[in-house]
Amino acid sequence: MIEIPHWLDKQTDLQPNATAIELEGRVVTFNDIKEKSQRMASGLINSGVKKGDHLAILAGNRLDFVYFIHAVSYIGAVAVCLNIRLSPREIAYQLEDADVKHVYTEQEHINKASEAAHILKKQPSIIPLGTLPDSEKVMDLNQFLKLDDVFTMMYTSGTTGKPKAVMHTYGNHWFSAVSSALNLGLSTNDKWLVCLPLFHVGGFSLLMKNVVYGMPIVLLNRFDAPLVNDHIMNNNVTLVSLVTVMLQRLLKSQDELYPSTFRGALLGGGPVPEPLLQEAGQANIPVFQSYGMTETSSQIVTLSPNDAFRKLGSAGKALSPASLRVIANDGLTSPNEIGEIHVKGPMVSSGYYQHEPHAEDYLATGDLGYLDEEGFLFVVDRVKDMIISGGENVYPAEIESVLQEIKDIEEAAVTGINHEEWGEVPSAFVVVSDQSSITKEEIYNFCQKRLASYKVPRTINFVSELPRNAANKLVRRNLAQLLDEED
Amino acid sequence: MIEIPHWLDKQTDLQPNATAIELEGRVVTFNDIKEKSQRMASGLINSGVKKGDHLAILAGNRLDFVYFIHAVSYIGAVAVCLNIRLSPREIAYQLEDADVKHVYTEQEHINKASEAAHILKKQPSIIPLGTLPDSEKVMDLNQFLKLDDVFTMMYTSGTTGKPKAVMHTYGNHWFSAVSSALNLGLSTNDKWLVCLPLFHVGGFSLLMKNVVYGMPIVLLNRFDAPLVNDHIMNNNVTLVSLVTVMLQRLLKSQDELYPSTFRGALLGGGPVPEPLLQEAGQANIPVFQSYGMTETSSQIVTLSPNDAFRKLGSAGKALSPASLRVIANDGLTSPNEIGEIHVKGPMVSSGYYQHEPHAEDYLATGDLGYLDEEGFLFVVDRVKDMIISGGENVYPAEIESVLQEIKDIEEAAVTGINHEEWGEVPSAFVVVSDQSSITKEEIYNFCQKRLASYKVPRTINFVSELPRNAANKLVRRNLAQLLDEED
Repeated sequence: MIEIPHWLDKQTDLQPNATAIELEGRVVTFNDIKEKSQRMASGLINSGVKKGDHLAILAGNRLDFVYFIHAVSYIGAVAVCLNIRLSPREIAYQLEDADVKHVYTEQEHINKASEAAHILKKQPSIIPLGTLPDSEKVMDLNQFLKLDDVFTMMYTSGTTGKPKAVMHTYGNHWFSAVSSALNLGLSTNDKWLVCLPLFHVGGFSLLMKNVVYGMPIVLLNRFDAPLVNDHIMNNNVTLVSLVTVMLQRLLKSQDELYPSTFRGALLGGGPVPEPLLQEAGQANIPVFQSYGMTETSSQIVTLSPNDAFRKLGSAGKALSPASLRVIANDGLTSPNEIGEIHVKGPMVSSGYYQHEPHAEDYLATGDLGYLDEEGFLFVVDRVKDMIISGGENVYPAEIESVLQEIKDIEEAAVTGINHEEWGEVPSAFVVVSDQSSITKEEIYNFCQKRLASYKVPRTINFVSELPRNAANKLVRRNLAQLLDEED
Repeated sequence: MIEIPHWLDKQTDLQPNATAIELEGRVVTFNDIKEKSQRMASGLINSGVKKGDHLAILAGNRLDFVYFIHAVSYIGAVAVCLNIRLSPREIAYQLEDADVKHVYTEQEHINKASEAAHILKKQPSIIPLGTLPDSEKVMDLNQFLKLDDVFTMMYTSGTTGKPKAVMHTYGNHWFSAVSSALNLGLSTNDKWLVCLPLFHVGGFSLLMKNVVYGMPIVLLNRFDAPLVNDHIMNNNVTLVSLVTVMLQRLLKSQDELYPSTFRGALLGGGPVPEPLLQEAGQANIPVFQSYGMTETSSQIVTLSPNDAFRKLGSAGKALSPASLRVIANDGLTSPNEIGEIHVKGPMVSSGYYQHEPHAEDYLATGDLGYLDEEGFLFVVDRVKDMIISGGENVYPAEIESVLQEIKDIEEAAVTGINHEEWGEVPSAFVVVSDQSSITKEEIYNFCQKRLASYKVPRTINFVSELPRNAANKLVRRNLAQLLDEED
């Protein structure tokens, strides 16, 4: 089993006084982060936290999140990263499923966390991050990280709609960071701007690059186009991770050319439309399109800006040292033949908590795609019917199960419909019982209480039946046709 | 067990037509190398070579060496890299010790290889590289490399003087390459010049960077100062690996400033004297001093050019993800206290062929050194009494054992003496029997027949007794005093 020196110790040893994080004008060095994280770890140990404990964090992009994550690694505990946009009910499900012992939360979300805890029989303790015990004495902390040890859990959901905790080892995160460096290169001048949430793997992976590369990051607690542009233009930011809607907004709020020192934008969340690529090119923004998921610890396939126009719509090629294949009828597909995308590599999670580990060598992603003659990947359906709304993954089955809790609703199906600002938004199709007098507004209000706002259907359509295939399985991609018929 | 796609397949997939190697004006792409190596692998399999076989290579820096190395990895065999400067007797020892089945050699060294084979009872076959079977049909070749599998063996020798084969896994080489990238950065403009022999780990590691990074290398079959300078000045070489004597020669043969695109020289083989550092600085050459050995798959400690003058004489800090500690009296030393250097990391070999694996977590290097208050390593004695002559490691005990074969010699000891051109050269001190009339010339001639020329003592001194400590152990560092007394 491979172990490496604790990455924060290592960076503190190599460059103690180098800037690690910039946040709201504050500059924090690697030594600062180590000090704070080790004190927090010591405090946690003093308060009874043990190696292997599952500790949830419910917080936005703030330094306490960073200190907490490293404290967890110094203890050898596991960090369960919660989405702050989830409803109390959703949080409760994850707390129970993940066997969470304590929840650490920022002031802003303390009520939500408490509400979630009260739903559960076995209630985890809720601890405000600001009141965390801070110990002077640094206890016996991990000096090495074993690459096979589980470090984080983040929730995702397959087509079943039941959220599952993806387990990431230290190795998954380390190899992901290194793969990205082998792909994008690594310069001592690099500074990466983080405006994606740290509780998702896209943002979290930048926290890992921060300590694996020893690279400074600029941390924003939310996306703000003028502010991001200002950091690129005036604060030597060389790289930024975005979803498509953010790139659109950046371009809208900026007239000047981007500086040549800006190495580019790494884009997740589906292919970038050609006009946007054109616009980015004219503004001097190299765009790296990518494909990845929580299970791959961030991007695993990337398209270089050189190929962006030549391979329009492609996600690129599998990073070194990852592998990719497309399978149909139990065999490899021919070029341009659609099949399921399978991936493999040391950055791929070995499985979900409470589930059997992946049986196969490759992870079947559930996504459909094809490879062209030159081996470039084109993703056809991103997680079959998954909706991507403003960069957030929305799983129809999850919304459907909430709808089906409504007595009057006999059947429900959800699909994504195009939306100018968010890319896609969820739209619900429901079959109600004959005697029912339920209104769209009542359904909407019910959803609002149970779901994060971005998951609440934007439109609700009453239909007489749902499209089903021969095996009586719902065919979500045919839902949009019902919409057309209705018009 | 982690496995990664075969690195040459990966680069061929990512950038088939990119330049991989430049050699004597020829340009070879990754696709060319893959084609040639896979054909060679197929030919070897057709000729009976099997997975796990030990195959020796006796060749200088040429494309056949490169194809052979990759062919070995496609088969899953083990490459035993022989130093072309060894005597037939020395080669014979290594062939036998390493259980070599076949020796692949360039025309130039075929007689030496045959002579070596004839010494042995169980003779390996000698196969000229030029006549290697070349198969059209590509057999079932490795598509993945398991990081724990042994890939290469290279000979080194501890203080005992008995050469031992350091086993390197794919993982050792991969992590070494990645560690170097995390330290030096990695640019798409990088091009590394290789003038160190590929059969040593310093040169070999650049062959690994070539396929792990997908970075072009310029391969020279020997060091030639004007040629190296020409590549730096006119062929966009950004990095070069050197030993100190080579840096001296580069500076001597060049008057112009080096271009700012030249990122620097990675230097092995002991600390660089201040005047040379000054000269390099004036010529605009950033110098990365380093410490490493065959067992660490190349440098494991590096000093950045920023610290070169501030930390004169230091080898720097342990690369991420490696660790370093200095041990004396079974405990960690205080700052500035000398002890034995211990290293750990996924690039450190797990042991020697035919020997027990390292029992400890850390590898005891046998080198003495100390860490200063800031944690910078200073190496005091490089492998206790080892002599570094023109970048070659010379082990006194090995020469002593040859000297002791001479009947008239009762005792022999060897140490390094300073030499303007080679840094150090071996010098012998012998105690001969009372009745002996043996001459220095006779001793010299005997050594010449048995040892590579760089190991033959440059001076031979008759002394009445050797310096020994209380435990009657030879104290080689006191030999130089005898020289002074003699003068």
